[in-house]
Amino acid sequence: MESLPSKLVENAVNELSRLPGIGKKTALRLALFLLKQDKSMVEDFGNAVIRMRQDVRYCTICHNISDDDVCEICKSTKRNRAIICVVEDIRDVMAIENTSQYNGVYHVLGGIISPIEGIGPGDINVKTLVEKVKTGEVKEIIMALPTTIEGDTTNFYLYKQLKEYEITVSTIARGIAIGDDLEYTDEITLGRSIINRTPYINSI
Amino acid sequence: MESLPSKLVENAVNELSRLPGIGKKTALRLALFLLKQDKSMVEDFGNAVIRMRQDVRYCTICHNISDDDVCEICKSTKRNRAIICVVEDIRDVMAIENTSQYNGVYHVLGGIISPIEGIGPGDINVKTLVEKVKTGEVKEIIMALPTTIEGDTTNFYLYKQLKEYEITVSTIARGIAIGDDLEYTDEITLGRSIINRTPYINSI
Repeated sequence: MESLPSKLVENAVNELSRLPGIGKKTALRLALFLLKQDKSMVEDFGNAVIRMRQDVRYCTICHNISDDDVCEICKSTKRNRAIICVVEDIRDVMAIENTSQYNGVYHVLGGIISPIEGIGPGDINVKTLVEKVKTGEVKEIIMALPTTIEGDTTNFYLYKQLKEYEITVSTIARGIAIGDDLEYTDEITLGRSIINRTPYINSI
Repeated sequence: MESLPSKLVENAVNELSRLPGIGKKTALRLALFLLKQDKSMVEDFGNAVIRMRQDVRYCTICHNISDDDVCEICKSTKRNRAIICVVEDIRDVMAIENTSQYNGVYHVLGGIISPIEGIGPGDINVKTLVEKVKTGEVKEIIMALPTTIEGDTTNFYLYKQLKEYEITVSTIARGIAIGDDLEYTDEITLGRSIINRTPYINSI
């Protein structure tokens, strides 16, 4: 990219292009947009991000992002603490909460095992999950990790850590999405949907 | 979108989603990315943007972004001040500079006339352009604005302001891009390229 006529703008463009999915050209477009906004708006923008990073807290029980020491879900007396759904990050919690189909609690790993990105089992919240299971109060662990090599690796690692305890370890069902055509479904998904077929009565 | 479990994160997501082309989902992805970075990196990020907006300066001659009162191009003794290329914003200056084919100076409008977005002739740098022409030192104005209704409107408005002065007003050539096929070119571009055909000797 050509050099910018201002070091200040160049610096901002470099910082903006650190964001995932944002290249230099897009970063320049964003910088020019911000230059056209009110000073106070840009200050709010920058400070909101800094303050979030500085002051954010994580639920001490499930590691979800929270404004308190314990998140709303872990605080709730209506949730079943015997079932824990293991997810990669906060977005997965939000997606599952949005279905209104789950009444248990969560455990946010904060990442998945990925040797390529240098993320090992020690970098994600595994220890605290095993400790929860050790208390004997947990009956079921539902793994809701992505179906990638990293997700499978993490599933397997967790399974190895948990299998000695008397709990059920399940994974969320993989199959054909509601509304999808059979002919356009990949073989692996279709194969899994046949192997893991469910009683008709569960699907109505 | 589902409500976020932290007001701090929600606030940052709202701010990030003000950026053009960034919706709430992408903003959340960016916020989670920033949460995983070092505090100092996020501070650099936020402060770079705030500082850019606070301290940026514009060249008093051509309105290009600059770290000084006068930009490098306007300062240069090698540029021909009798030719001014009128562009919408700094990105256009960078694109033209990148061709190494232009030796004149620029005039950055800082926008184009757009009734829909509420941008009138008073909101862009027209006055200073007319003043430059009034000095009698300018021989040619090259309009390099986008080929949109807004660009055409701005071209026409500028032309009306400038036609009483003894200068040449030209626009950059529109035609078929080098390497493009005739059959895939739209009729308007192809038509223009025939009407504004150039002597063969100029194209080799």
